[in-house]
Amino acid sequence: MILFYYPGACSLANHIALIETGLPYELVSINHEKKTADGRDFLAINPKGYIPALELEDGTVLTENPVILNYIAEKSGKLLSKKEGIRWQVLEVLAFMASEIHGSYQPFFRNFSEPEKERAREKLKKAFSILSDQIGGKMFLVGDEITIADCYLFWVLMVAPRSGVELPTPLRNYFDHMKIRPAVAQALSEEHLD
Amino acid sequence: MILFYYPGACSLANHIALIETGLPYELVSINHEKKTADGRDFLAINPKGYIPALELEDGTVLTENPVILNYIAEKSGKLLSKKEGIRWQVLEVLAFMASEIHGSYQPFFRNFSEPEKERAREKLKKAFSILSDQIGGKMFLVGDEITIADCYLFWVLMVAPRSGVELPTPLRNYFDHMKIRPAVAQALSEEHLD
Repeated sequence: MILFYYPGACSLANHIALIETGLPYELVSINHEKKTADGRDFLAINPKGYIPALELEDGTVLTENPVILNYIAEKSGKLLSKKEGIRWQVLEVLAFMASEIHGSYQPFFRNFSEPEKERAREKLKKAFSILSDQIGGKMFLVGDEITIADCYLFWVLMVAPRSGVELPTPLRNYFDHMKIRPAVAQALSEEHLD
Repeated sequence: MILFYYPGACSLANHIALIETGLPYELVSINHEKKTADGRDFLAINPKGYIPALELEDGTVLTENPVILNYIAEKSGKLLSKKEGIRWQVLEVLAFMASEIHGSYQPFFRNFSEPEKERAREKLKKAFSILSDQIGGKMFLVGDEITIADCYLFWVLMVAPRSGVELPTPLRNYFDHMKIRPAVAQALSEEHLD
């Protein structure tokens, strides 16, 4: 499988998941001109033009971060419990982070107006508070084992400082312990972010 | 199961899916003061405060629209093919509509500034064009049968005029044929939107 990524972008979540599961993968970066590092036109691979995109063995391309994470989990049989209670909670919090948090990072990534940034900060504060309550003092976001939700949350928290919103203590503690996991450290290193 | 909804809001997608699958359901609306029509505090049911929320038989509450749709499909064995090629495409386009389109409706729902509306319109035009290419002249968004992606797309298209973005012809034709499906007509009627 080929993961099309941009260093430090949300594709980091998929990258971490691939390492955690042990699935074989190849990383191919794209540049701002939508060219892949192996010389292809990224728009022909994903007409939506954004990362992440996962090219499967049969050439099919899968997009949308939470769906790629779900695919990696099902393919590997790891990072997503089959227990009903856990599984739906993982998929739920992934969708929450994708729509409520990732969307609210846009004003900072693209330097929108200050009122827009302020509105996004309010939304982020609320969302971080919900995640903080959910994690409490636990090691992982859902249940007792690492899941694909943690792969995404790590990226969410890594990028949070760009918004200027301070993270609640439980999330800061969580981030610190996740950062030293071997798979996370390896992903950061492979993206030259360490 | 109880579906907490607001008439005409995106919970309509879940409502249509429940009718299509034949699963038994109860509808409970919430008002702007976050009270449910059966007298409960909605924030105690879903601390995030937004619809849709689906209360399961065991009292568990599931939130996030694409995840509720996925749950309804798995629970009923309908509206989501088990064929790999179809299933991942359905989940992918659901995630796409939730993050790229639903998020871009906010400036119109909440009357943000004109530059924000204009930026959202640009994003919506691109997203509608992608969906229009995907549907072409087909009856349904993915494959040959109705899926949960269609339940969501119907709502997306119903609300589109509020953005002022004109829908491409394939999407208008699709909307017209979906609107007269019995399950869709029943959902609209139950939400007093007919």
